Amino acid sequence: MKVSPFNSPIFRQLIEFKSNTYTYILGCHKTGKAVIIDPVVDTVSRDVQLLKDLKLDLIYGLNTHVHADHITGTNGLKSAFPSMKSVLCSKSGGQADKYVSDGEVIDIGGLKLEVRETPGHTNGCVTYVEHTLKSAFTGDALLIRKCGRTDFQQGNSSALYDSVHKKIFTLPEDYLIYVGHNYDGILQTSVWEEKNLNPRLTKSKEEFVEFMKNLKLDYPKQIDAAVPANMVDGKDH
Amino acid sequence: MKVSPFNSPIFRQLIEFKSNTYTYILGCHKTGKAVIIDPVVDTVSRDVQLLKDLKLDLIYGLNTHVHADHITGTNGLKSAFPSMKSVLCSKSGGQADKYVSDGEVIDIGGLKLEVRETPGHTNGCVTYVEHTLKSAFTGDALLIRKCGRTDFQQGNSSALYDSVHKKIFTLPEDYLIYVGHNYDGILQTSVWEEKNLNPRLTKSKEEFVEFMKNLKLDYPKQIDAAVPANMVDGKDH
Repeated sequence: MKVSPFNSPIFRQLIEFKSNTYTYILGCHKTGKAVIIDPVVDTVSRDVQLLKDLKLDLIYGLNTHVHADHITGTNGLKSAFPSMKSVLCSKSGGQADKYVSDGEVIDIGGLKLEVRETPGHTNGCVTYVEHTLKSAFTGDALLIRKCGRTDFQQGNSSALYDSVHKKIFTLPEDYLIYVGHNYDGILQTSVWEEKNLNPRLTKSKEEFVEFMKNLKLDYPKQIDAAVPANMVDGKDH
Repeated sequence: MKVSPFNSPIFRQLIEFKSNTYTYILGCHKTGKAVIIDPVVDTVSRDVQLLKDLKLDLIYGLNTHVHADHITGTNGLKSAFPSMKSVLCSKSGGQADKYVSDGEVIDIGGLKLEVRETPGHTNGCVTYVEHTLKSAFTGDALLIRKCGRTDFQQGNSSALYDSVHKKIFTLPEDYLIYVGHNYDGILQTSVWEEKNLNPRLTKSKEEFVEFMKNLKLDYPKQIDAAVPANMVDGKDH
């Protein structure tokens, strides 16, 4: 077993600049085990190097959902960490080594990630909550002062509203929220902020559904390549 | 006095994408007072909004040094926080409302930033250490697996080597290091990592000086506008 040089949980946030994706490494300093959340194929070599530098053994590669805006790095990470298991929600429809559903816990020792299903952006969206770090990793379900779009990939704004209100806003208000993307250079938010200041999610459910219907967003640049590849864990690209 | 909605110290990292600059907000949840480290003029309105959202009153705008690669936001932040004082090292040669030197402490209540002079990239470089958060904010003195260049603005590679070894590597190994820039999307490092893995600073001092002499870096794009502006606290641009 590798031994971490640190005396407390290891938490690292990373960025992939092309898709403005945030990737997270969480490591247990006692067991030397780690998970990575939402790795991107373009930054696999950087992430492998950092995990090795930190003397961490990657156990799980967690995708919060089948991404439309970048290709997952979970398949690429396997060449460096052959025993790593990729993880997706059982409702995602995508291929993975392990499927999780609401209430399950991903256990790496001192750190335990509770799975909360938060559908609405896609059917298979999950949020991971780590209570020791008082942190939630929401993927695209809840973004900073925004939320994931609901106009493709089984998007359902009514379901998204319920997900955020029932599974994220019920966490303690000082829990930090780490999202999948941000285009303004903001790296973290909190349950308190989004519950009180998110201009979309503080609306009534009816107003929210109407608002999401009228967003008129551009078609995501990478969706035609990214979704088919991510349905098979990033193997097809 | 404003009252923070949180029960623990507030820490936020932010990015300005054009110059890949990292900006930091540190706030005391008891006093509602905050400092910002290395704000960029292009992101002033974002930072003002975030500080107001967090119910924080900005007391100090700290620049780790006179920047060459972006114009500081400290002057711009004053329109929203008129009592904010800009801060520079007394050895920087630049204008500021308050000058600090080695050993001083910037006190905002529960959070206290110890000033450590770390010259070498410029004469007036300082690192701020916050012991509660076990974190050091090194500006350009120490970067992730790199360090600030020493070929302009009174750069001195021998001084930089001593600064890092005497003022940063003497901190406990699990202290996190938050730098001024990173171009690979890595957001934080640690004393342990840089002490053991930094390919420049693990060299002998003689080898380091030789290495820095041969870097042959491009002239920074914004230096001709940024340095004169930052010598007068970002007022001249």
